[in-house]
Amino acid sequence: MAQHNEAPIRVGLLGAGTVGSQTARLLVEQRDELSQRIGRDIELVGVACLDPDEVDFPWIDRSLLTSDTMAVATNADIVVELIGGLEPARTFVLAAIESGASVVTANKALLAKYGPEIYQAAEAKGVDIYFEAAVGGAIPIVRPLRESLVGDKVTSMLGIVNGTTNYILDEMTTKGLDFDVALKDAQAKGYAEADPTGDIEGHDAANKAAIMATLGFHANVGIDDVTVEGITKVTADDIAAATAEHKVVKLLAVVENGETGVSARVYPALIDENHPLASVHGSFNAVFVKAEAADDLMFYGRGAGGAPTASAVVGDVVTVARHIAQGCTGPAITLYNDLPKAPIEASKAAFAVRFVIHDKPGVLAAIAEEFAKRGVSINGVNQDLKPTLHEPGYSGELQQLRLVTHLTDEVTLRETVEAVCQLDFVTGEPSILRVL
Amino acid sequence: MAQHNEAPIRVGLLGAGTVGSQTARLLVEQRDELSQRIGRDIELVGVACLDPDEVDFPWIDRSLLTSDTMAVATNADIVVELIGGLEPARTFVLAAIESGASVVTANKALLAKYGPEIYQAAEAKGVDIYFEAAVGGAIPIVRPLRESLVGDKVTSMLGIVNGTTNYILDEMTTKGLDFDVALKDAQAKGYAEADPTGDIEGHDAANKAAIMATLGFHANVGIDDVTVEGITKVTADDIAAATAEHKVVKLLAVVENGETGVSARVYPALIDENHPLASVHGSFNAVFVKAEAADDLMFYGRGAGGAPTASAVVGDVVTVARHIAQGCTGPAITLYNDLPKAPIEASKAAFAVRFVIHDKPGVLAAIAEEFAKRGVSINGVNQDLKPTLHEPGYSGELQQLRLVTHLTDEVTLRETVEAVCQLDFVTGEPSILRVL
Repeated sequence: MAQHNEAPIRVGLLGAGTVGSQTARLLVEQRDELSQRIGRDIELVGVACLDPDEVDFPWIDRSLLTSDTMAVATNADIVVELIGGLEPARTFVLAAIESGASVVTANKALLAKYGPEIYQAAEAKGVDIYFEAAVGGAIPIVRPLRESLVGDKVTSMLGIVNGTTNYILDEMTTKGLDFDVALKDAQAKGYAEADPTGDIEGHDAANKAAIMATLGFHANVGIDDVTVEGITKVTADDIAAATAEHKVVKLLAVVENGETGVSARVYPALIDENHPLASVHGSFNAVFVKAEAADDLMFYGRGAGGAPTASAVVGDVVTVARHIAQGCTGPAITLYNDLPKAPIEASKAAFAVRFVIHDKPGVLAAIAEEFAKRGVSINGVNQDLKPTLHEPGYSGELQQLRLVTHLTDEVTLRETVEAVCQLDFVTGEPSILRVL
Repeated sequence: MAQHNEAPIRVGLLGAGTVGSQTARLLVEQRDELSQRIGRDIELVGVACLDPDEVDFPWIDRSLLTSDTMAVATNADIVVELIGGLEPARTFVLAAIESGASVVTANKALLAKYGPEIYQAAEAKGVDIYFEAAVGGAIPIVRPLRESLVGDKVTSMLGIVNGTTNYILDEMTTKGLDFDVALKDAQAKGYAEADPTGDIEGHDAANKAAIMATLGFHANVGIDDVTVEGITKVTADDIAAATAEHKVVKLLAVVENGETGVSARVYPALIDENHPLASVHGSFNAVFVKAEAADDLMFYGRGAGGAPTASAVVGDVVTVARHIAQGCTGPAITLYNDLPKAPIEASKAAFAVRFVIHDKPGVLAAIAEEFAKRGVSINGVNQDLKPTLHEPGYSGELQQLRLVTHLTDEVTLRETVEAVCQLDFVTGEPSILRVL
């Protein structure tokens, strides 16, 4: 086998896009230094792409380019999967493992859906599966969870793990833009894709939440276990109301290992402007980790981008290459904790609710009554003019009523809001945001 | 050898203080889970301490306690050194390595002084030397530098790596305390030691700076290469002046790999209140890393404390134990970059200088002249009443003149300040702080 002679360690690259091309650049331009750190020569032996004629980077020898992805996936010591998506990525990754190759991937969707299958295949075959770039781009968060904190007990993680939504919310906050305008602007600037669904609906963050929970709690948490709420319902009024209360709106991936079990959620939340996560701007990412012994940790950096992501990918390649050179492997992704999934009712949070109302006597009393009936106690109330909305056929003054609740479970809260919306003086769509 | 049979991996602990006792607790209480993650049983086989009769923790079997440190250091598969200081720690660590044991240590002073000797001894013997807890306590910073960023090129690091000084500066800022008062308060609260010299003079931060530079630049940077300035000269007036300009004073460890070579420095500096490092409060630590591909990264967490530090130590123990179980080792600490040490003249910075002066006509002109003569250009000037100081035998009004320079080299700056202090209307001690 390769690791018993001194032939170069052979790296096959699947995908030659933004990250793939930068990964190739680092592997080629820094080959000598990397080989020195590995203790053995490392060589890029193939780059699979859809159309070799379309790929043109000075550092990629054209003879390495091929559209035969399976050939590259099954003829290397290390296969770097940067295709993305579920299939055919899954097929190629499993084929690579079956051929005895170790795998480095940045594919969060693949791991959130088929992680256990892939982890077990790698362990059975005695090869490595590394994926630092799958969560938080360049931020070293996977390795610390996998190695640094193994002697500790992670209780919760809180992350801003999607740069697109963070950029959009930032623009809405600083420029007072509506969601649609901010989205178009982000697309124009290349921060959001033509089809932004995966980002703005929270699916990308949900994939990362599943991976964070799996690594942090050593339990099998998949994408289907994650409850997801995106930012499409966040309005300029929500942001304005947040700003008025010295808070910011962030899309958070929240994973917890509590008494009632494991939970993984993605939702937009109000956080205090003094919270460290509040100062994570633009396309930066950050992950907060709470562990029993280590207490609070935060990791911050570039969540996306060709070069930053490639830095994380190549870091994994070097680690895996060292293992091959030594004939060992890194820690397996262990799922030995068979933890129950916490029921949604068990999750208690404080909520900020905003209703648009016709201003007349008794309104607050009637609304408060609906909350009281269901045992949802109110922490604070705010009422002010609602200028940006006009209701056809209503000449009176429209006001917005903002309530912040004490800790309550989401199900009861939504029932309460439901009931309030039935009141005849309540109009428009209510807004519901968690308060951290 | 141990790794070829299934006997437990034997861990010897040198030191049973705050960190040692917590390390023992995690090793004993989580033995099953740790063994599961290691793939082999792990056992605490000895705890060396000065006086076994003085040590009493429910989780440490008394039969494991001994004052024969050398016996523990040379009869284990993994030796955890938590004695601290240079000697006898160095002797025990080298003896442990010589006996074929891998070493985990939190000893920053030892590594900053004898790192190369220890790294080379470990490499020659084919054993591991791990030290996550030596920089930033519980913060995973060593492992990311050692593994995650190996495919990248680290250009600079900026860290708040001493909790004691950060706590003192915080107290001075929030409560307007003088340094001496804040220090006494910190000692009373246990945040500063009876002899605080190592912290307040910046030596502890300097040790960490040397290790950061060694890991980040793969070059031999020792404690003697670090220029150090502590916080003892920082006054309440400096803090007040900083606050007036929306800045905070932080003690920073700064390592750079620039055109003129490698530099490692520790000094108090003014940073903008919006800089992420400005919100690192109390005894927390944070390290900023700038790398070519990854761009900006930040790591934040508990820089000290028994349990947090023990979390990092046990993380290392598990990693090393896995290597032993597999018969391999982690990446050696490579010092292959023979980088020149940047001359102090080469380091350019902006400086905030504060003079106490007798208020009379022509003062500013005369001072500005001294700066102009030496080509130090001034970016801004501020003059105001200096209430807290009274000069015996002078009835006139004392003012303080604050200048901020453009980028200039430190040597010229200090010569200029020297010259200004010769002017007859300048009195008291000048204050010089870098501006980030």
